[in-house]
Amino acid sequence: MTMPTFVQVLDFVGTFAFAISGIRLASAKRFDWFGAYVVGFVTAIGGGTIRDLLLDLTPGWMTDPIYLICTGMALLWVILFGKYLIHLHNTFFIFDSIGLALFTVVGLGKTLACGYPIWVAIIMGSITGAAGGVIRDVFINEIPLIFRKEIYAMACVVGGAVYWICSFFVPDAVIAQIVCGVTVFITRILAVKYQICLPTLKGESD
Amino acid sequence: MTMPTFVQVLDFVGTFAFAISGIRLASAKRFDWFGAYVVGFVTAIGGGTIRDLLLDLTPGWMTDPIYLICTGMALLWVILFGKYLIHLHNTFFIFDSIGLALFTVVGLGKTLACGYPIWVAIIMGSITGAAGGVIRDVFINEIPLIFRKEIYAMACVVGGAVYWICSFFVPDAVIAQIVCGVTVFITRILAVKYQICLPTLKGESD
Amino acid sequence: MTMPTFVQVLDFVGTFAFAISGIRLASAKRFDWFGAYVVGFVTAIGGGTIRDLLLDLTPGWMTDPIYLICTGMALLWVILFGKYLIHLHNTFFIFDSIGLALFTVVGLGKTLACGYPIWVAIIMGSITGAAGGVIRDVFINEIPLIFRKEIYAMACVVGGAVYWICSFFVPDAVIAQIVCGVTVFITRILAVKYQICLPTLKGESD
Repeated sequence: MTMPTFVQVLDFVGTFAFAISGIRLASAKRFDWFGAYVVGFVTAIGGGTIRDLLLDLTPGWMTDPIYLICTGMALLWVILFGKYLIHLHNTFFIFDSIGLALFTVVGLGKTLACGYPIWVAIIMGSITGAAGGVIRDVFINEIPLIFRKEIYAMACVVGGAVYWICSFFVPDAVIAQIVCGVTVFITRILAVKYQICLPTLKGESD
Repeated sequence: MTMPTFVQVLDFVGTFAFAISGIRLASAKRFDWFGAYVVGFVTAIGGGTIRDLLLDLTPGWMTDPIYLICTGMALLWVILFGKYLIHLHNTFFIFDSIGLALFTVVGLGKTLACGYPIWVAIIMGSITGAAGGVIRDVFINEIPLIFRKEIYAMACVVGGAVYWICSFFVPDAVIAQIVCGVTVFITRILAVKYQICLPTLKGESD
Repeated sequence: MTMPTFVQVLDFVGTFAFAISGIRLASAKRFDWFGAYVVGFVTAIGGGTIRDLLLDLTPGWMTDPIYLICTGMALLWVILFGKYLIHLHNTFFIFDSIGLALFTVVGLGKTLACGYPIWVAIIMGSITGAAGGVIRDVFINEIPLIFRKEIYAMACVVGGAVYWICSFFVPDAVIAQIVCGVTVFITRILAVKYQICLPTLKGESD
């Protein structure tokens, strides 16, 4: 057994936070343990799976059971400490933002490694970060949250754009990836702190 | 820069009309600009993406940014002229029917080119034309419209069947494709004009 | 024309039962014939299609029109005998359980044949058996039933685990497959008969 790398630790933290978000929303809808597990798992791996299907790669969770185990730990956590989770709201918000940032960077990197242009990579980064939450909301029969309010997937797009600009000035992809991840993280945090939203379209019935 | 072909112009018109339909329904649900863009984009490219995943091809929108640009123009259009769109109802209905016809022909042709039999091609033509609207309706949390009323995907099936019959008599695939597209277009127009519907299943609770 | 094998007969019975379940739920929502057909078809082949996309295989229904024909027969059946179907409730429950068992075994076997480890195969078996019903419930705009009550996909997981244990003691894959299928079937029947459920997560608002 080797020590996990820093990226693997972040990946675990992000997966755990995404799974918790799925399991908590499932519990609010009175899903049973199995349903909550599935929703948590799909929230965590759904974005990466859609990306890998589009890129014609084998989804990452099919090659490493860590995502299943991580979701199991998240379910256990909610079952045991569910009542106290509300007090950890800020902690999970930070974890979730770490996950969003990391998943965006991973999606971006994987897509560029396949030889696609940067605009495809930015979309794939956003899908990796945000599509799991869309499937989660479809499963609990709600309109996907990210379409209605808050800067969420837009933070991925901003991070991707920053990566692109960086790549003109910095030859090292690792530095551009770090700048990208930090940008996603900070954009998300600032948007929530200052309640920055995108404009809403006016319905025609007004 | 070369002149776009006639098919490319139709493709742009169809994509624009499909994106508009997604963005308008998103605006009725108070989606923000980002959400409306995503719903518009998925409405336009969702059917072709499912088809390409099933055929194990790279989705078309990942090889050409025109679909992203076209959706952006559709969003801008709705933001600027949203109030007046209601008066263009008939124009958009014609555009949408052009899109439906063209997408059906493209899906049919791509599937036959992969060596699949005609019945698979007819299904893929219908998926290309109609599945984007199904994902759109799932995203806005409504029962998919095409399952409940109006001849929509059925127009694709009719067009596909006509293509099949044509292919016995006409050796030229292009002529069969034109006849197919015209059939889809006319079927859709006539069905709406004369309010032709399929029968509804009676629920068991009656 | 050759005689269908025993497995082909079971596959037809399972497909028919799954299609019926989709068509009945669609009829309760007043879908038209086309919508009911699509929902029935997706209920029957949706799980296998997701599995095949994840495994990068061509979905089975694209190579054999039997699933289309079977769904057509199911639709005809509901149109003609819909009123009397309620009396066949137990028969369809048995058919549905046969389908669940067979689809699990097929999904498990296909995944192992691709060289994946057993834990991936167990997930794919469960997806094959249960994911069609999830898409069905998304299409009719309900929270997926299998997430809320009854042992359904869990029966697939139990069957998969039994297959795994079997494979240590029995060298013949066919015997392990039969034991797996019987386990899924019996688990499902017992769970419904004795109303065995998984615990529900408590919502945080309590």
